[in-house]
Amino acid sequence: MNYDDVMKLALERGFYFPSCEIYGDAHAGFWEYGPAGVGLKNNYLELWRRELVRRDDMLEIDGSQIMSQSVFEASGHLSSFADPIIKCKECKSTFRVDKLISEKTKIEIPESADLLDFDKAISENNLKCPNCKGGFEAARKFNMMFKVGIGPDGEPAYLRPETCQSIFVDFPRLYKTMRGKLPFGVAQIGKSFRNEISPRQSLLRLREFYQAEIEVFCNPNKLNDVEKFSDVQDTVIRVQLDELKEMSCKEAVESDIIPNKFVAYYLGILAEFYEKTGIDMSRSRFRKLGEKEKAFYAEIAFDFEVETTIGWLELVACNYRSDYDLGGHAKKSKEKFEVMDDDEKVLPHVFEISMGIDRSLYSILEHCLRDDKENDRIVLSLKPYLAPIQVGVLSLVKKDGLKEKTDDIYQAIKRKYDSFLDHSGAIGRRYRRLDEVGTPFAITIDHQTLQDDTVTLRDRDSMEQNRIKVSEIDSVLYKKTAFP
Amino acid sequence: MNYDDVMKLALERGFYFPSCEIYGDAHAGFWEYGPAGVGLKNNYLELWRRELVRRDDMLEIDGSQIMSQSVFEASGHLSSFADPIIKCKECKSTFRVDKLISEKTKIEIPESADLLDFDKAISENNLKCPNCKGGFEAARKFNMMFKVGIGPDGEPAYLRPETCQSIFVDFPRLYKTMRGKLPFGVAQIGKSFRNEISPRQSLLRLREFYQAEIEVFCNPNKLNDVEKFSDVQDTVIRVQLDELKEMSCKEAVESDIIPNKFVAYYLGILAEFYEKTGIDMSRSRFRKLGEKEKAFYAEIAFDFEVETTIGWLELVACNYRSDYDLGGHAKKSKEKFEVMDDDEKVLPHVFEISMGIDRSLYSILEHCLRDDKENDRIVLSLKPYLAPIQVGVLSLVKKDGLKEKTDDIYQAIKRKYDSFLDHSGAIGRRYRRLDEVGTPFAITIDHQTLQDDTVTLRDRDSMEQNRIKVSEIDSVLYKKTAFP
Repeated sequence: MNYDDVMKLALERGFYFPSCEIYGDAHAGFWEYGPAGVGLKNNYLELWRRELVRRDDMLEIDGSQIMSQSVFEASGHLSSFADPIIKCKECKSTFRVDKLISEKTKIEIPESADLLDFDKAISENNLKCPNCKGGFEAARKFNMMFKVGIGPDGEPAYLRPETCQSIFVDFPRLYKTMRGKLPFGVAQIGKSFRNEISPRQSLLRLREFYQAEIEVFCNPNKLNDVEKFSDVQDTVIRVQLDELKEMSCKEAVESDIIPNKFVAYYLGILAEFYEKTGIDMSRSRFRKLGEKEKAFYAEIAFDFEVETTIGWLELVACNYRSDYDLGGHAKKSKEKFEVMDDDEKVLPHVFEISMGIDRSLYSILEHCLRDDKENDRIVLSLKPYLAPIQVGVLSLVKKDGLKEKTDDIYQAIKRKYDSFLDHSGAIGRRYRRLDEVGTPFAITIDHQTLQDDTVTLRDRDSMEQNRIKVSEIDSVLYKKTAFP
Repeated sequence: MNYDDVMKLALERGFYFPSCEIYGDAHAGFWEYGPAGVGLKNNYLELWRRELVRRDDMLEIDGSQIMSQSVFEASGHLSSFADPIIKCKECKSTFRVDKLISEKTKIEIPESADLLDFDKAISENNLKCPNCKGGFEAARKFNMMFKVGIGPDGEPAYLRPETCQSIFVDFPRLYKTMRGKLPFGVAQIGKSFRNEISPRQSLLRLREFYQAEIEVFCNPNKLNDVEKFSDVQDTVIRVQLDELKEMSCKEAVESDIIPNKFVAYYLGILAEFYEKTGIDMSRSRFRKLGEKEKAFYAEIAFDFEVETTIGWLELVACNYRSDYDLGGHAKKSKEKFEVMDDDEKVLPHVFEISMGIDRSLYSILEHCLRDDKENDRIVLSLKPYLAPIQVGVLSLVKKDGLKEKTDDIYQAIKRKYDSFLDHSGAIGRRYRRLDEVGTPFAITIDHQTLQDDTVTLRDRDSMEQNRIKVSEIDSVLYKKTAFP
């Protein structure tokens, strides 16, 4: 099943759809989660909390999205978070100038090059607007942060382009009040904003998007002094070097493919997390980024990528940011960011696990969606703990008191489980609809229910049905939908 | 315990603190949730989902915060969501002009008045700047929406000032794809943004804040045709008329204090929800708003208010918005918003339950915090299902193998329960710290544990300790921390 199949599912079954769509397509790069998407997202985030945040005893915060200008002066985003662009004089279309030149001429100019280099390449190669053949204005830098004005005087501030900036500026207070000790992990889920030139592909390049970021503050002198590394030493990861290699975390460290146990530990628990999301890990890889590819703050960078029908998608950026961030904020704010680690005074380094939630959800959908031709159905084989609807509650027919009995059972479980009540239509069609939205279980109330107080419990994947007692429904569902 | 006590708790125990505080106080109106605040908020929202969204079979969506200009032309916010302000010519301070005039002269001019009326009152009463005695510029309107520019050409768009606009513009798709039937409830949790002139009092007047909004679409001809009203008819609510009166929902409808069963049903389930949050309902009221107080879109409006040490706080606005919103969006977008209800074609009316999350959390903290002088402790008596840390896991001493046993028990439960491991300091002091952050239970591992595999379970409120088996910990905690 490919991107278009997932899009069809998303639109028809309420996973996601364009924002402000009644006002046309002028609002590119903004999408909404429908009811099925919200359910999937909430369950995914609960899994993330269990498998990463709580597992590693991290703290979670929730910071403001609008942050003051000083933050982005210190972080480097005001000066560095910009793309080189060029605009057609005639039709006013705008393009990433480095990409346009590379597509048309194969000449590669780094995006950080002097603007005059782009203008020179444009004129030497006589490049024109791809839309209307018009000439171009001079290249310019376009900062991708959204600016807002605070208060009546419009004090400049910005929507954060990455959630982690909240974690960095909050570090002194958090470390102190939460009785911190290195390594000290702080996590956050929230919206970030980037004013992309060319948003596209629904959830894959958004202007407003969800991140789940983890920043682990550490002593740079103790990157191989990691007791809990033994928990993941045998965990298998796939690393993209010249070729793709499977290896244990231990092997990755011993062969210097991953530079230390500290980084390897987090790649290990991240792989264990994704294993539980239902993503096909045989189509995943950690790719080490080269010097030119890395973000401006990263010293070591591995991207966690997943193969989809539209290519490899970066789901997580794992960056060793060194003391770039705390050093920058310490310098600008004059606040104290150094802490004591045993008897050593240290400005902590940072390793981050920066996860794109929207892209992760897309990948789960694509990897779990299948066309079960034999049974003439589309099945979304989500893990039961991630399914937006965990159980359908169906009456075989509405008459003979079955409707009332069904309503009672639904009422008894609906506050605890994400449940869906359905009385109408052929029972086979109702099962198909539940299969397509990923519902792992269906309870059906039939005439036998009225005699012996049992119902059928249908399993989405095997399509098998077993009779269970009404009194057992809660305990059965509790076990079957529990997080691992 | 008053506002300052709650603030002290919030800052010291990681409930909330100012955003970007390392860069000084220039970023007024923006606050962050720390680890304890995130835990409390997540649990509060789960209760909200259970008691309102799932109870009433509503759908939940999660829409973009940045919405297109057309949305706010149709909603009326571009023209009407503005405060009249005035600026000092000398010191450049800005004030709400209606409030300034009313404070200094007792003359009440409605905020929607012609701007010349304010200028006239200022000059006739010879009002000067309260800060520097300077003269004023002419009054002007200040729109409270934050504007952003999309893409390189800066197409105007806005951060939504209320989450419900996503629900309104998404209504046609949701109703169709989710097989809607009236009444049709759609809920959303998310950030909204208002560029307040004078943000203040931490979580109580923010520029960026959380709302949990519910919009129920209904047939205006069936507002007394509400089958499930019987569920709440005996639920007691407190209504502020000339005086505060306690009455059942049924009495409120019969005496015409609430105009119909439909509105009364939702006020009833809202009261039942807040009862479960730990707010002292004897200090709550529904206040019916007069014509002048209501928002520009509201036909009937009740505010749910809670008494705190800084006065009555509005936590929820319950507005009957009629067809104001769907009518406005239908007209501007040309999209079809009418639906069939049985055989009747109807443009649905809307009743909303617009909840301020931040203020609700503040009120819970203030109502649950107490100074237990007898036992020389501060106790935050949060409901166990709302507590950010549900259980402390403590070793009586670190030696004799107690540390290792404690670590094992902590590891076994920490992914499932919000747990806190603490080995250091006097045991009494550790209990006090857990009491202050609202942790309902503490498990202590002592020498007896090594002999008979039992631990003590301490109850925060009664301070009683009972021994339970290690093998029972999960089932005991499961019951004690379960949602009602």
